[in-house]
Amino acid sequence: MVKEVTAFAPASVSNVSCGFDIMGFALEGPGDTVTARLSTQPGVRIGSISGCTSPLPVDASGNTAGPPVIALLRQCVPGTGVEIDICKGIPVGGGIGSSAASAVAAVVAADALLGTNLSREELLELAIEGEKIAGGSVHVDNLSPCLWGGFVLVRGYNPIDIVSISVPDSLFCSVISPRIEIKTEHARKILPKAIPMEDVITQTGNAAGLIAGMFTGDFPLIGRSLRDVIAEPARAHLIPGFTLMKEAALAHGALGCGISGSGPSLFALASSRDDAGKIVSAMGNALAVTGCGYATLVSCVGARGARVIS
Amino acid sequence: MVKEVTAFAPASVSNVSCGFDIMGFALEGPGDTVTARLSTQPGVRIGSISGCTSPLPVDASGNTAGPPVIALLRQCVPGTGVEIDICKGIPVGGGIGSSAASAVAAVVAADALLGTNLSREELLELAIEGEKIAGGSVHVDNLSPCLWGGFVLVRGYNPIDIVSISVPDSLFCSVISPRIEIKTEHARKILPKAIPMEDVITQTGNAAGLIAGMFTGDFPLIGRSLRDVIAEPARAHLIPGFTLMKEAALAHGALGCGISGSGPSLFALASSRDDAGKIVSAMGNALAVTGCGYATLVSCVGARGARVIS
Repeated sequence: MVKEVTAFAPASVSNVSCGFDIMGFALEGPGDTVTARLSTQPGVRIGSISGCTSPLPVDASGNTAGPPVIALLRQCVPGTGVEIDICKGIPVGGGIGSSAASAVAAVVAADALLGTNLSREELLELAIEGEKIAGGSVHVDNLSPCLWGGFVLVRGYNPIDIVSISVPDSLFCSVISPRIEIKTEHARKILPKAIPMEDVITQTGNAAGLIAGMFTGDFPLIGRSLRDVIAEPARAHLIPGFTLMKEAALAHGALGCGISGSGPSLFALASSRDDAGKIVSAMGNALAVTGCGYATLVSCVGARGARVIS
Repeated sequence: MVKEVTAFAPASVSNVSCGFDIMGFALEGPGDTVTARLSTQPGVRIGSISGCTSPLPVDASGNTAGPPVIALLRQCVPGTGVEIDICKGIPVGGGIGSSAASAVAAVVAADALLGTNLSREELLELAIEGEKIAGGSVHVDNLSPCLWGGFVLVRGYNPIDIVSISVPDSLFCSVISPRIEIKTEHARKILPKAIPMEDVITQTGNAAGLIAGMFTGDFPLIGRSLRDVIAEPARAHLIPGFTLMKEAALAHGALGCGISGSGPSLFALASSRDDAGKIVSAMGNALAVTGCGYATLVSCVGARGARVIS
């Protein structure tokens, strides 16, 4: 029996402007890595956490990587002991699916370690246990692209219904992550509880338009659809230089630009990798004016999902 | 110069469950026919109205066919006189785009008569003048499939942005029209003014899912997406036998079933013309129990749009 398994889970952009709580895509580059090993001590224990500057909970039930593995053991192999080492490659509270990646990498590693061989749908159900800690509610628009890879639509939550959306090859993404932290739970609390009918019609039109644009490779349509009348108006003020960055992205050829997840990261879509690079530089220059530090990345839209790497 | 032009505009299903105010498709079979002829008397006059049992306004400014032509004359050929004859082939207040078809047929006929040669987008702007009379608000999810044909997404209203959606060849539609009338204006007034966030997420997920299902030909996905948590709960009680008909449709293999437009017509989608025929019979049998009369039709999803026929 394998004694130790390491899995990688990518960062992801969720919401994607018009797809609040229902769309997301995996990013290439950053991700969390979790090593799971058998332990003689029943239950789940976190052995180590590395790669992050701010302290994360080392109690397994308080770290997003823990509850998915606790649930996996309870459901499939009660009495077993698993120790996990978490190597964070994604900034916490940055809005590119940090908590989701830890949860997914942990459950993918544990599933392989224990030979439980669960389906992606089953792994998703387990990974949700981690997101409940991070966001205070069930939302899977980071978890599902992190697990499936690619661009994902969460068609429904009851039951969860994940649909892979094909994306034009030449669609790329710029991401800028200002070095501040926004708690997902706070970013959810400030959202309106109800949405005026007119805005609902706008949001559904844009969500449907974005999917149509993806399937037809219609970049102008993708751009026109990347509007968020629900979360962005409530959250933009949390992000330093939001308007400056967005204007810079659009001025440099971005199809559209919005908040990644609950922020503070912003994403922009572009019709080539070259454009995405220029756009992210322009966003960085715009943010620099505020004095806020940041990191950037350029990625395809919909990288590979989580996988065992050793 | 041509002295008389006749145009046909098809019936249409709008809303399509999850696409409230943003989706619609043209039906084969029924439609309104409008003949426009030059008149020496400036302005627009209705010469005759046929094909309907209940009286319609004969004053041009009060009938949905009039204002689009009035606006066309004002914008393009002021001082000209046009007389229009309206032959209704679609029941008024039935929920399959009767007012939209009159407006569209009238403006298409007048455009050809006067040689103004407007684009579809321009014709749509004019046709909206007719819908304002019928519904008290601007909505184009019947007008645009009626003009464009096929299955249409209204991506946005400001500005109006029409996107043609490709549909699987073997997708068919059953429509049952109970013989009662529902005023669009009333059906809009009873809608909630704001929608709980949870329902917004459900509706956007379904709208996006339906578009994905159309492009991929994924019939089960189309079926799962055909849910309406916004208008149907508020409007179903207006329709006699609504639940009976919907249950009958689903029991006989419908992918999904919902209210067409603001009702009382119901539509169901099916994966073959044969199925659509069986489904509409079952819906008819279910409605017959209530004693309410009805008409039925079976159609492809997205027939040809409006055109000049002579």
